[in-house]
Amino acid sequence: MPKRAIVLLSGGIDSATCLYVAKKEKFLPHCLIFDYGQKHKREIESAKKLARKAGVGFSICKTYFPWKGSSLIDPRIKIPKRGRGIPSTYVPARNMIFLSFALSCAEAMGAKAVFIGANAVDFSGYPDCRPDFYRAFSAALKKGLKNKNISIKTPLIRKKKSEIIILGKSLGVPYELTWSCYRGGMAPCRVCDSCRFRAKGFREAGFEDPLV
Amino acid sequence: MPKRAIVLLSGGIDSATCLYVAKKEKFLPHCLIFDYGQKHKREIESAKKLARKAGVGFSICKTYFPWKGSSLIDPRIKIPKRGRGIPSTYVPARNMIFLSFALSCAEAMGAKAVFIGANAVDFSGYPDCRPDFYRAFSAALKKGLKNKNISIKTPLIRKKKSEIIILGKSLGVPYELTWSCYRGGMAPCRVCDSCRFRAKGFREAGFEDPLV
Repeated sequence: MPKRAIVLLSGGIDSATCLYVAKKEKFLPHCLIFDYGQKHKREIESAKKLARKAGVGFSICKTYFPWKGSSLIDPRIKIPKRGRGIPSTYVPARNMIFLSFALSCAEAMGAKAVFIGANAVDFSGYPDCRPDFYRAFSAALKKGLKNKNISIKTPLIRKKKSEIIILGKSLGVPYELTWSCYRGGMAPCRVCDSCRFRAKGFREAGFEDPLV
Repeated sequence: MPKRAIVLLSGGIDSATCLYVAKKEKFLPHCLIFDYGQKHKREIESAKKLARKAGVGFSICKTYFPWKGSSLIDPRIKIPKRGRGIPSTYVPARNMIFLSFALSCAEAMGAKAVFIGANAVDFSGYPDCRPDFYRAFSAALKKGLKNKNISIKTPLIRKKKSEIIILGKSLGVPYELTWSCYRGGMAPCRVCDSCRFRAKGFREAGFEDPLV
């Protein structure tokens, strides 16, 4: 019987690739998709399409951050073009919250692993995307959960965006279904951090971005 | 200027006492109250009354656990009278999720501390109520948050329920506004774990429970 895994699926390149890595590793994935008031709400539709295309189940987690604290969820703050240090798109404790929900789901469903497409190379410097954080969080889950044998998997954390795309291409990831732009308009803005990392990745990987 | 603190307020004895401890320590508390599909939904009303009575602000966090995995949120599973080991009322990763939200709120509001009324003496054996877990989680937050100086405070973790009640009485906690029973009926059931620990606490403390 295949082992169940929970995959955090945002609808972007990294999480889509992560889903296919989980499949490749013979896990039976169940995806969690978060509707948390993000400006680029359309990533939710991308995530659903990706899960359906991959033939896996998913749950939508509706939650929100009443206290905001990020340009990604606060309509009063503009998404920046490019930041110094940690940009305003950082959402306080977001990955901690998402991971905790994924662990809850994993425990309830008897899953062995939680996959998250965090990346600490071509990224905005968010602290909750770094290997250190996942190491420390893994130690905490061993203390706080009933099932201490769930592992957090971050297969992309040390890869360049171009390496992620090359890997994904080899696994058949349908990148035409993904969405990256933080502004969530009709077409990618091409200037936010997320668009820039995506463009750089495709360029360096030698592929055309199907969204452009 | 008083330091801001986030207090996780369920509406029970421990969290109510914790709120008054935070006030005593000269923090300016902001409470988080979770509406997560719990059977004892009426604890939410208790929590709101407690926050109002204490004169502090609060946010209601509406979220839920689509995967259930606990008799506290699954209508198909009865709340047990008394469990062996970790009872079915354990909600997978609940405190991890609540703490993560509290840390998010703390970061967004510039709070210095998060208070949680976890208790590892007169408790049901939930792993996420033990000191070990809070130690490990505190290490993880230092890696994952932008603000690494938020501390998690568990002032009641090693106290007996009776000691908590004696402390709370000295601080003026209005226990008549609290709610503990997991079944959430019109009156406390007096047989669930939560009712039993409450009764034992009041008895050992030498006070009458205002709800009985």
